[in-house]
Amino acid sequence: MKTDVEIAQEAQMQHIRQIAAKLDICEDDLEMYGKYKAKISLDAWNKVKNDKDGKLVLVTAINPTPAGEGKTTTSVGLADALNKQGKKVAVALREPSLGPCFGLKGGAAGGGYAQVVPMEDINLHFTGDFHAITTAHNLLAAVIDNHIQQGNALDIDVRRVAWKRVLDLNDRALRHVVIGMGGKAHGVPRETGFDITVASEMMAILCLSSDLEDMKKRLGQIVVAYTRDGRAVRADELNVTGALTLLFKDAIKPNLVQTLEGTPALIHGGPFANIAHGCNSVMATKFALKFADVVVTEAGFGADLGAEKFLDIKCRFAGIHPDAVVIVATVRALKMHGGLPKTELGKVDMAALEKGLANLTKHIENVQKFGLPAVVAINAFPTDTKEELDFVEEKCVAMGASVALSEVWAKGGEGGLELADKVMEAMEKPSNFRFMYEVEQSIPEKIGAVAREIYGADGVDFTGPAKKQLAEIEALGLDKMPVCMAKTQYSLSDDPTKLGRPEGFRITVKELRISAGAGFIVALTGDILTMPGLPKKPAAENMDIDVQGRITGLF
Amino acid sequence: MKTDVEIAQEAQMQHIRQIAAKLDICEDDLEMYGKYKAKISLDAWNKVKNDKDGKLVLVTAINPTPAGEGKTTTSVGLADALNKQGKKVAVALREPSLGPCFGLKGGAAGGGYAQVVPMEDINLHFTGDFHAITTAHNLLAAVIDNHIQQGNALDIDVRRVAWKRVLDLNDRALRHVVIGMGGKAHGVPRETGFDITVASEMMAILCLSSDLEDMKKRLGQIVVAYTRDGRAVRADELNVTGALTLLFKDAIKPNLVQTLEGTPALIHGGPFANIAHGCNSVMATKFALKFADVVVTEAGFGADLGAEKFLDIKCRFAGIHPDAVVIVATVRALKMHGGLPKTELGKVDMAALEKGLANLTKHIENVQKFGLPAVVAINAFPTDTKEELDFVEEKCVAMGASVALSEVWAKGGEGGLELADKVMEAMEKPSNFRFMYEVEQSIPEKIGAVAREIYGADGVDFTGPAKKQLAEIEALGLDKMPVCMAKTQYSLSDDPTKLGRPEGFRITVKELRISAGAGFIVALTGDILTMPGLPKKPAAENMDIDVQGRITGLF
Repeated sequence: MKTDVEIAQEAQMQHIRQIAAKLDICEDDLEMYGKYKAKISLDAWNKVKNDKDGKLVLVTAINPTPAGEGKTTTSVGLADALNKQGKKVAVALREPSLGPCFGLKGGAAGGGYAQVVPMEDINLHFTGDFHAITTAHNLLAAVIDNHIQQGNALDIDVRRVAWKRVLDLNDRALRHVVIGMGGKAHGVPRETGFDITVASEMMAILCLSSDLEDMKKRLGQIVVAYTRDGRAVRADELNVTGALTLLFKDAIKPNLVQTLEGTPALIHGGPFANIAHGCNSVMATKFALKFADVVVTEAGFGADLGAEKFLDIKCRFAGIHPDAVVIVATVRALKMHGGLPKTELGKVDMAALEKGLANLTKHIENVQKFGLPAVVAINAFPTDTKEELDFVEEKCVAMGASVALSEVWAKGGEGGLELADKVMEAMEKPSNFRFMYEVEQSIPEKIGAVAREIYGADGVDFTGPAKKQLAEIEALGLDKMPVCMAKTQYSLSDDPTKLGRPEGFRITVKELRISAGAGFIVALTGDILTMPGLPKKPAAENMDIDVQGRITGLF
Repeated sequence: MKTDVEIAQEAQMQHIRQIAAKLDICEDDLEMYGKYKAKISLDAWNKVKNDKDGKLVLVTAINPTPAGEGKTTTSVGLADALNKQGKKVAVALREPSLGPCFGLKGGAAGGGYAQVVPMEDINLHFTGDFHAITTAHNLLAAVIDNHIQQGNALDIDVRRVAWKRVLDLNDRALRHVVIGMGGKAHGVPRETGFDITVASEMMAILCLSSDLEDMKKRLGQIVVAYTRDGRAVRADELNVTGALTLLFKDAIKPNLVQTLEGTPALIHGGPFANIAHGCNSVMATKFALKFADVVVTEAGFGADLGAEKFLDIKCRFAGIHPDAVVIVATVRALKMHGGLPKTELGKVDMAALEKGLANLTKHIENVQKFGLPAVVAINAFPTDTKEELDFVEEKCVAMGASVALSEVWAKGGEGGLELADKVMEAMEKPSNFRFMYEVEQSIPEKIGAVAREIYGADGVDFTGPAKKQLAEIEALGLDKMPVCMAKTQYSLSDDPTKLGRPEGFRITVKELRISAGAGFIVALTGDILTMPGLPKKPAAENMDIDVQGRITGLF
């Protein structure tokens, strides 16, 4: 069997100007990065901004299991299937991060015959957007420490600098560091740490900004530190908002690439789905909606986390909403949710399947609570039996969701035609979109709404420190923003071991963090690592490039 | 008067494919980054590698003073002048670093009417080469700490990890840090620090590699740490040489841009001129020599540092040498070398000029010691008098050097026609190039040769620690490499206050560092800061971009 990078390197790619032409984007509005990647100029937006939007499909999933679901693969394959059916379609995805690429995953651009290409570029530096974030984030950090060193006119409390540094790598040794050592000439010693670049608030800002002007405003509003008397210090007070914005002058432009089947793909932004909202940029999605008749996009993790934040945060800021939501599941993963161990997923166990199916049906319920039609995509696996597939379909249909088998990993767009039909049907259904909460509600009310309605919790508890932070955020007048939930992706609850559809549980909020630039309050319900570590044998050890430029080890 | 960025933004740039056509590079060998930047594919090299080389001009300078000399400006203007004269010419320069851009300098791509464009892109992320270095450098660092965390099979001494981390920023608080804090799950605590990216050994490797294969070999040879029994641990032992090379697959390709007058400019690589050799990449220079009949390039700092390392390190590795060397000087700077304070440089003081001229004449001598013809370019300033200019010319001509007034800052190529004539004449002179030392000599012999012949020192002393390092390097068998001198740029001696042509001094080597991947031994003669700090009011504070994309504050 061929690896992903082998399939990708065999692809006969079309010149990016041909891909752009499919969306009626003229060559003059492209800034090419080689022959197969381009940024779409901001002038292109001005030409289409008054046009009618296309239809939007959001691809999400059940709570992920080690069995794997294939959300990106399904998104790509669905777009290819719609393309095969003659639709003017685009897929809008997140950019992968180098950290997991070198760590465990070795790449993230779909899989099998449903990939975006050039996958090696997309997985490595791509068009430099993440490097721009790393640079801007760290410039702000350097300016903060320089301000303290040069006299600290703002009276920043060195124990309360909220702005850390970032690198787009997995590097656990940088989680907790002491900087400014070595004596008077080398800064003021203090404790801090590094996050991975995708966890930067600037990543969330890039993804939520409507244009460069909006981005500048958001960058300036970042709370970077507190003074010794407790006042929040904003980035604007350090006088480098202009320089930060300048660093994003190209990064803000959406990137255009293609799928293996030549479907246009806009890949732009990629915030952490736990500490941030976890979906591609507002600008890329809005561009795509103007240029295409149907846009397929995805949100991180399961529907309780990714889709909820897509709908309550991204859609709210962008003034858009999906016309249908695809929930990706596999029979194997549902059996895991029903209690089967990973080693026994190949065998038929209808009791486990029925029990695990409750995870999927809860997500269908949730999509319907948002007022949207749900389509279940069952990512096919050779061990699936007709009995199992029929059982899943019957239950979903009984709830008003449609179901399709997806074979895009093995067959590309051809394997997604049924799914495409079901999605097109669903999009014709009347939708009645609503948010789970209103920003004017209090933070406990907003978190409570998500916890009860989406997670199925009985209620929400705040720890002592979280209560203190809540009072502080309210005192600062920063509580009237959406809440960005940081919760384990493995369970509907905040306990990763509770699979299926847990009941009779409460959610515990341990910490609240202000992301005043991005425009949300992060509610942490567990210990979220914002800087991953490398495994004993990092994926990087398998990677190589030879004299002919042949690449191995990316997949 | 217009600022540099104003002049640059008014430029009517030609499409990069037109610039490439001037060098007979076909569009298929270009990987465009927008309309005005491109990387030249490695296939292009295969087409021309057996062609005859063009002529090479090296631009260097007297020891820099706060009065300013304008080496990059002169290089660009000289190339434009040769272009005006109908020569098939290219200029090969270094990429600027973001650190000084946001710190003091606010940009570095020539000045006035002798600039390379698009200057705002060149000064910011450009084509991402430095970001690739930052990423690869830090991936190797993360892998080292992960190796230690995961059992330390190589028995690395955590007190002797030589490989630090890097960021392309000025950030003094990161010079000395303690990492791995926070408990067992977060790494092994140890002292380390961050350098600026341009000081990374990988930057030197990028600049000295002849191709991707050579680069992979050099990356693998980097000495990253020592074991507890003193053995040198190479990067290869961590199994990520392939991944590191993969990260450089695009960065290794030279970048093509243009001057304000449409002369092709190859801008690629930019190592620190103190801790490394300080010139643009071997690949860019070699590409340029195949594509153009005349190539103008530059070396960092004054001729004692930059030109010496260009000749003894870069030329040695690349198997090339210049046909003529231009030494840039200003009458004002010569008067400073003669003892005049900066506030009085506008007044005529022939005694100070005569005394300061000794700095220039020593550099002419040095160029001649390398067996090369010298041309002095006097960068014109309104306060210069005919008496002063005549005096400088007379002294230089008496030594066998030719002299030309350069007005390229104010007039572009038109202001460099005389200089171009003199350079073309000089290149016809017979040259008899030789190195200052042979690599087979001992380290003290090699340093001694440079110190006596080039600096004019009486001899070299090694401090106690340096002697210990010398013994260790010899024991490791790593002493048969060129020496990369790290010395103050302000004086021919190792004391920055000794201007003009100091005599009766000795050089003190305080530290020796192994750069086994780059292929040289760094000899530090003073405290070299490899991570600069920001000034009280960083240049970043002046920078901005408005809705129309107009940029201010870069110059």
